[in-house]
Amino acid sequence: MGTVVEQLNANVQGYDRLYGLEFEACSDVEVRARAAVREEIKQPYGLVHGGVYASMAEAMASVATALAVAEHGEIAVGLSNSTSFLRPVTAGTVHAHGKRVHRGRTTWVWDVSFSDDDGRVCALTRMTIAVRPMPAGG
Amino acid sequence: MGTVVEQLNANVQGYDRLYGLEFEACSDVEVRARAAVREEIKQPYGLVHGGVYASMAEAMASVATALAVAEHGEIAVGLSNSTSFLRPVTAGTVHAHGKRVHRGRTTWVWDVSFSDDDGRVCALTRMTIAVRPMPAGG
Amino acid sequence: MGTVVEQLNANVQGYDRLYGLEFEACSDVEVRARAAVREEIKQPYGLVHGGVYASMAEAMASVATALAVAEHGEIAVGLSNSTSFLRPVTAGTVHAHGKRVHRGRTTWVWDVSFSDDDGRVCALTRMTIAVRPMPAGG
Amino acid sequence: MGTVVEQLNANVQGYDRLYGLEFEACSDVEVRARAAVREEIKQPYGLVHGGVYASMAEAMASVATALAVAEHGEIAVGLSNSTSFLRPVTAGTVHAHGKRVHRGRTTWVWDVSFSDDDGRVCALTRMTIAVRPMPAGG
Repeated sequence: MGTVVEQLNANVQGYDRLYGLEFEACSDVEVRARAAVREEIKQPYGLVHGGVYASMAEAMASVATALAVAEHGEIAVGLSNSTSFLRPVTAGTVHAHGKRVHRGRTTWVWDVSFSDDDGRVCALTRMTIAVRPMPAGG
Repeated sequence: MGTVVEQLNANVQGYDRLYGLEFEACSDVEVRARAAVREEIKQPYGLVHGGVYASMAEAMASVATALAVAEHGEIAVGLSNSTSFLRPVTAGTVHAHGKRVHRGRTTWVWDVSFSDDDGRVCALTRMTIAVRPMPAGG
Repeated sequence: MGTVVEQLNANVQGYDRLYGLEFEACSDVEVRARAAVREEIKQPYGLVHGGVYASMAEAMASVATALAVAEHGEIAVGLSNSTSFLRPVTAGTVHAHGKRVHRGRTTWVWDVSFSDDDGRVCALTRMTIAVRPMPAGG
Repeated sequence: MGTVVEQLNANVQGYDRLYGLEFEACSDVEVRARAAVREEIKQPYGLVHGGVYASMAEAMASVATALAVAEHGEIAVGLSNSTSFLRPVTAGTVHAHGKRVHRGRTTWVWDVSFSDDDGRVCALTRMTIAVRPMPAGG
């Protein structure tokens, strides 16, 4: 799996690069990633911004689904992202672990769990991805 | 309302500054903000990253609630963020309009609607904020 | 609009009949319904069961969408139902008011607000409906 | 665990009795229940009504949390219920399995998975429960 992860990390761009997404593993059933905590991803109270968790889950579920459906000429687009915040993270690394919980014909569902360096669960995202035919000429 | 918005924008920091949040109006019942679309807030297909909408809603609802409850010695913390993606934005400005739909003793709920420069609704977030006593010595 | 509502109420069946759904208005942009509070729709503390709000929203959004898309040979199926509970109802009538907030090619989104006899908002549902071609021979 | 389940089933009342909830196991980390499929819990297309899944999850998470916190003089109240519908059930039994994914001081979070008689996942609920002091004199 190393090669896929190396390629994914070499191609992290745009928003995911801005906040610092790093992939650790990626398959069609599981995806792991992390982001280093720094001032630029915090909210005013000094905690990691809730939007960071939502962004990581969005990227992880989208990329893992997109890789899996590309061979069928399909693309993956986020449909909904529902994130619960359980415990703040203030330092270290945000660790994210996503598991696919549904693979339908038109939608995939992923559960992503976020933890801190002590292994405590800090946030949870349920991410629904739409799978659609690749736009012609796209 | 100008003064509050000027102060808010002068103090945008951390993650909200990274992706480019700008407040336009903020009260205890309504909040408006925007973000300029640029490569740094996009996902790999060239669309505004879903995490940007979630992040904006998080910030807007948290700040508007925090301002309102501060006088009672309370703080505002995001509890859950549920975002639906309806239509991609690829250029221009992301416009966000939040309305408070519930003010409880321990939770406030905000609905944030996102639109593009043509006024088309592109995403919707329901944001639940916990209102808690300010930590002693905080 | 009376005729549509009369027909809808004459055909309420299955689960919707069990808990007591009554339509008051139904179009492709708005739907109103109610349910009388009785012991059979309460949970053990004597409050209206949270599942009742979720069920009403599910039915209202599904029926309103189904009526609108039937002429195009399409059906409506619930994709997700996200309900927030704000204030308990213990007596009288549960009043529900749904508004369509998105009409896409493959998904419609409705926001349903629930109130008690005093007009206080008691619950909110965001309902996503999938619109699909009618099954052949169906 | 038999005694707890027997007592729970002997006391199923109100709405949970109306649609037919039956507990199979219940602890502070896991809860199992089922409901027999019959016409009275279906929607107009002949599928189990989406509200049934939401109702079961609501009851299971609330009861399991309430049992656990009662010894500390606290009660459990549903805060939000987010259900995704993945595959219809038309006959047999709806099987539900809930796992606690967070135990905070003021909120507990449960994930409930629903399957049909063939073990296929048909719906998923994320349920947030508020834990509050028992009302005085309650």
